[in-house]
Amino acid sequence: MTARFTPAEAKPFALHPDRLFPADPVTRAIARRLYSAVADLPIVSPHGHTDAAWFAEDRPFPDPARLFIVPDHYVHRMLYSQGIAPETVGVPRLDGGPVEQDPRAIWRLFASNFFLFRGTPSWLWLNHAFTTVFGVEEQPSADNADRLYDIIAEALARPEFRPRALFERFNIEALATTESPLDDLRHHRAIRDSGWKGRVVTAFRPDPVVDPDFPNFSANLAELGRITGCDVASWRGYLAALADRRAYFKTMGATSTDHGHPSARTADLPASEAEALFDRVKGGQAAPADAELFRAQMLTEMARLSLADGLVMQIHPGSRRDHNPWIFKTFGKDKGCDIPGPTDYVSALKPLLDRFGNARDLTIILFTLDETAYSRELAPLAGCYPALKLGPAWWFFDSPEGMKRYREAVTETAGFYNTVGFNDDTRAFLSIPARHDVARRCDCAFLARLVAEHRLEEDEAFEVAQDLAYRLVKAAYKL
Amino acid sequence: MTARFTPAEAKPFALHPDRLFPADPVTRAIARRLYSAVADLPIVSPHGHTDAAWFAEDRPFPDPARLFIVPDHYVHRMLYSQGIAPETVGVPRLDGGPVEQDPRAIWRLFASNFFLFRGTPSWLWLNHAFTTVFGVEEQPSADNADRLYDIIAEALARPEFRPRALFERFNIEALATTESPLDDLRHHRAIRDSGWKGRVVTAFRPDPVVDPDFPNFSANLAELGRITGCDVASWRGYLAALADRRAYFKTMGATSTDHGHPSARTADLPASEAEALFDRVKGGQAAPADAELFRAQMLTEMARLSLADGLVMQIHPGSRRDHNPWIFKTFGKDKGCDIPGPTDYVSALKPLLDRFGNARDLTIILFTLDETAYSRELAPLAGCYPALKLGPAWWFFDSPEGMKRYREAVTETAGFYNTVGFNDDTRAFLSIPARHDVARRCDCAFLARLVAEHRLEEDEAFEVAQDLAYRLVKAAYKL
Amino acid sequence: MTARFTPAEAKPFALHPDRLFPADPVTRAIARRLYSAVADLPIVSPHGHTDAAWFAEDRPFPDPARLFIVPDHYVHRMLYSQGIAPETVGVPRLDGGPVEQDPRAIWRLFASNFFLFRGTPSWLWLNHAFTTVFGVEEQPSADNADRLYDIIAEALARPEFRPRALFERFNIEALATTESPLDDLRHHRAIRDSGWKGRVVTAFRPDPVVDPDFPNFSANLAELGRITGCDVASWRGYLAALADRRAYFKTMGATSTDHGHPSARTADLPASEAEALFDRVKGGQAAPADAELFRAQMLTEMARLSLADGLVMQIHPGSRRDHNPWIFKTFGKDKGCDIPGPTDYVSALKPLLDRFGNARDLTIILFTLDETAYSRELAPLAGCYPALKLGPAWWFFDSPEGMKRYREAVTETAGFYNTVGFNDDTRAFLSIPARHDVARRCDCAFLARLVAEHRLEEDEAFEVAQDLAYRLVKAAYKL
Repeated sequence: MTARFTPAEAKPFALHPDRLFPADPVTRAIARRLYSAVADLPIVSPHGHTDAAWFAEDRPFPDPARLFIVPDHYVHRMLYSQGIAPETVGVPRLDGGPVEQDPRAIWRLFASNFFLFRGTPSWLWLNHAFTTVFGVEEQPSADNADRLYDIIAEALARPEFRPRALFERFNIEALATTESPLDDLRHHRAIRDSGWKGRVVTAFRPDPVVDPDFPNFSANLAELGRITGCDVASWRGYLAALADRRAYFKTMGATSTDHGHPSARTADLPASEAEALFDRVKGGQAAPADAELFRAQMLTEMARLSLADGLVMQIHPGSRRDHNPWIFKTFGKDKGCDIPGPTDYVSALKPLLDRFGNARDLTIILFTLDETAYSRELAPLAGCYPALKLGPAWWFFDSPEGMKRYREAVTETAGFYNTVGFNDDTRAFLSIPARHDVARRCDCAFLARLVAEHRLEEDEAFEVAQDLAYRLVKAAYKL
Repeated sequence: MTARFTPAEAKPFALHPDRLFPADPVTRAIARRLYSAVADLPIVSPHGHTDAAWFAEDRPFPDPARLFIVPDHYVHRMLYSQGIAPETVGVPRLDGGPVEQDPRAIWRLFASNFFLFRGTPSWLWLNHAFTTVFGVEEQPSADNADRLYDIIAEALARPEFRPRALFERFNIEALATTESPLDDLRHHRAIRDSGWKGRVVTAFRPDPVVDPDFPNFSANLAELGRITGCDVASWRGYLAALADRRAYFKTMGATSTDHGHPSARTADLPASEAEALFDRVKGGQAAPADAELFRAQMLTEMARLSLADGLVMQIHPGSRRDHNPWIFKTFGKDKGCDIPGPTDYVSALKPLLDRFGNARDLTIILFTLDETAYSRELAPLAGCYPALKLGPAWWFFDSPEGMKRYREAVTETAGFYNTVGFNDDTRAFLSIPARHDVARRCDCAFLARLVAEHRLEEDEAFEVAQDLAYRLVKAAYKL
Repeated sequence: MTARFTPAEAKPFALHPDRLFPADPVTRAIARRLYSAVADLPIVSPHGHTDAAWFAEDRPFPDPARLFIVPDHYVHRMLYSQGIAPETVGVPRLDGGPVEQDPRAIWRLFASNFFLFRGTPSWLWLNHAFTTVFGVEEQPSADNADRLYDIIAEALARPEFRPRALFERFNIEALATTESPLDDLRHHRAIRDSGWKGRVVTAFRPDPVVDPDFPNFSANLAELGRITGCDVASWRGYLAALADRRAYFKTMGATSTDHGHPSARTADLPASEAEALFDRVKGGQAAPADAELFRAQMLTEMARLSLADGLVMQIHPGSRRDHNPWIFKTFGKDKGCDIPGPTDYVSALKPLLDRFGNARDLTIILFTLDETAYSRELAPLAGCYPALKLGPAWWFFDSPEGMKRYREAVTETAGFYNTVGFNDDTRAFLSIPARHDVARRCDCAFLARLVAEHRLEEDEAFEVAQDLAYRLVKAAYKL
């Protein structure tokens, strides 16, 4: 035995038709039948982070490294955990310091360390994209790095690999991006004006103007005032400005908002206290407790506005952002060092739920990075409040085991119909078909087990499979 | 694809002989063999909430809606989570306001939304009862609602569907109800006096007189004094009154007490402090910290009394009661809006365990709604203190996945013999056979996996299966 | 049905070649193939609690009871949880009070209660040792107790059952013991001087001199000063003394340190504050907050020293030691009453990680007794910081279900290559082959499922299986 981990030879990758189905032949056969009814349904992607400019401009993607490696924090995070510096795979430094610029060199480093992704969803997503989009049937390795690079680079230069062509090839019925209230949505406007039929809508993500800890919060408020013409120095004017931007986002197709807070805490302060709190935080020097309380109050304000304008509300709480100060200082936000922690829902959401939880015209979709909350808090809450629904397994749990645990933890208390189908939540456009396929297969695998164990009739499972893959997401997100 | 979720057609339901067994043929065959040895064992139900009056009076159950829907918070909670108001399924309003009175209309609404229960234990329990008790072999739906209603209503009018007949048909060897110390147990007395052989015993649930936050706590104390003739204005008299009622409950067959506290906190105060605390809370205006401390102290007092009188002590902690204020205000307690939260055991139980944990003549049975405690705290505690045993998967986890996770989390540290068999904990009398059957099948499925993986010999598994289904519960509860 | 639990007859035990593999034939066949490639690899045991004196002196083990029962807190803890007093199985009392001295009587009591271990890893380990080491093919019971005792006792008297012979028979390539900095490592020196080729190394466990709550902390410091000649009354001298002992431990083969703290809290105080803190705690009367802060600071100091001397750092946090005061008072530490509680990592480790988390030449191996941290905190942290690796499933989770949950929770975020192979962490020498075999089988079972579900190619799984069984542990621990 040598101590070498890195395999020299390329490993095959076969996109097996039974992938992700349980091995037991009876269960697998049921899963196959269920999956065959949902495999070709259009993709509805109600929450994600693709760039609207791609579809507005429809330019070719640059090169394999800048498509698959540089922007994907799942990829460079794993490499970094094994000591491979972000600079060496082209992640730009904030100080403009030297980083690898040669995409082929970046690709080689990635390929020769591809074995690190074994057992992770990146292995599934990347192999799926390489195979289905580019026809590659082996895994990246030191040996085949150059050859694979050439195949992908050559393809990307062709018209059928441009964003709009791929959007159509991926059979995407609707795709939501996520923008700040300060975004002018010019790309969405351009898409609309272009006459292209692809449905790309925005979603309203107000963190930059509702979270006092957001970088440049005070300047963001000023910009919000400038854009809307509202007096954002006043609480009332600030709320009006937010309502105004929500209305504008709706004209660009938005059907939802999204809120990424460190906790799920909500508050329902008397107006005068809320106003005083706003006055304390608006200057950008909020005390930590005030910042937390303001975010809490703003969730309730947003719910109030959602009840008025019909936007579906998503809450993504529980991530301690930028845990690694060196990575944050050197490379900036969203570089894979956001670490979850325990997240309370049952107390945290109470003020909001006391006010709006019984509203039947409101939809609040909850996500979690603390899986312990699923069976203990989230399923009981969603199984009790008409306004609440459960989002799919998120982020670290957008994976076969994560999805399996999600259904096992949630279904017995909340059922299937208090869930909302799948979100890919990704900026990795080429992973979207893979991710939806994984979700559909995992749901069919779960349903197949229920059928095999006589806990659901097979004809019911067919209906549920279609609901989970297509109908629920359209209904919940009004898409 | 349409966006319709509600199926118009009735779905079949077959009570498959292999239900809940793993699909793998080897494991399933073992599970079948194990189950065949326990399937027909009598039911011992040591903890539940059926109404002793049913067995005392033996009147027919009213109608399908008032039997299956109106009193079952699993049912109307799920419906409400999807926006179906409790009034429309006949849940009485506290203010006497209008609610649906027509049982057939309630039944139709339930039937046409039965698909919401897919994947939940209610689906199992209800289908089991419809099939085994009433011979129905299709699931309720809009199409068959009236027909099913008629079948069930007609049956309920017949003598063999009265409570005592069903008790016997269900092969119940012993059934415990749960009563307040203020209850005069007249129904239990009536059962005993009637000469009927069915064993229905009470259990002592002192929350109304030991929890200062219980509605009407102070008046409850006064009533306790009146009943017992003790001076409940004094700490000593109060404890004497509780001992007195425990003794009375024992004459009506009680072998256990039950304690439903928001946390598992215990205390072991010096007598003078306990007395002073009692003086602070007895008037019914306890500060929250005093109320919590008093409940904590009373668990230790109850353990002390249990050591004296032999009643087995059950602790059901961790539910935040009445989370939804609108539901609570409109419909009252126990309407499905009790939401669990994180529950500490390792610190919380220490004062009680320091005092009584090593007592070999005391049995304290612990339950949890926070599954994370099973492997981290509860199994290690039960695997170390002679006085502690683990209750079965409870409430939201009285379900196939919940039971599976329970055995997987608990067994490797606490073994099988620090657990106590199954509790149905239900007021839904007709679900009792279904619930015990689910538990037996799930335990056999777990054991079958151990045997198939050569982690237990099959002849051992036969013994364990019988212990889990019958012997352990009788021994732990002294029934 | 009788209420008897204790079976009179002995049950067979067959060490089945497919034990611990999933029952599904396709998956099992893959698991078998993978296992065949790792079954005979040497054992590398980088962390444990065997006694170096065994290998230095190579005396026969005393008798079956003193080998298998008296020192094994898994065994007497389970017996005690069922009311069997530690004295009756020979656990010595601190007060020298009477305990059972007859090994055969102890063995009989154990044997007649062996059924209590069903479903626990002790069942696996003990049966494995009885079978593979002593050729016994039935489980201990009241019936066969004497016969089994005789077989084992007779074998232990033979040369081939002495420690060194078993070490070689077990195919152990390297075995680490754990010693206090105050230990003179005379047994390790004796092993080395003996010319025996078995590799037994020490590991540096400084709790006695870095935890102010450790019994006799102040006296321990004095002893540390005496041994090293350093001025341990000063912070600087104290740190120098620790560095000195680490260097000495390295000469006796140490490649790692180990830290057993009640929490994972770390601190990175300015030198002057650390010095002042040391002055407050060194006298042995530390306030609880100071004691906790000092332990926190010392983890960071230890990381600093590890960066200098290359010792790999292990952190084993989260156990509330000696929960049962009667057991502690009567029998002392480490008697099976250490109970885990919720353990925070994401905040607790931040000071240490801010300082050293990005160091590529440092290895910190994290363990947990709070499984909820695996997917929520530990896998994300290990998937982000180059210095962090995840230790295997520990203590209560060194078991088939525990290992399964560990891989399922960890792999999708941290991959396989941020884990470090298996630790047996045991003082039960004869269980070492069983424990490593269980780990290898469970890892192969997990990998086989990935292959069967087409989530990994089989030739990749072969590489990973060998990495998990052998290569990763050698690399991570520098053995």
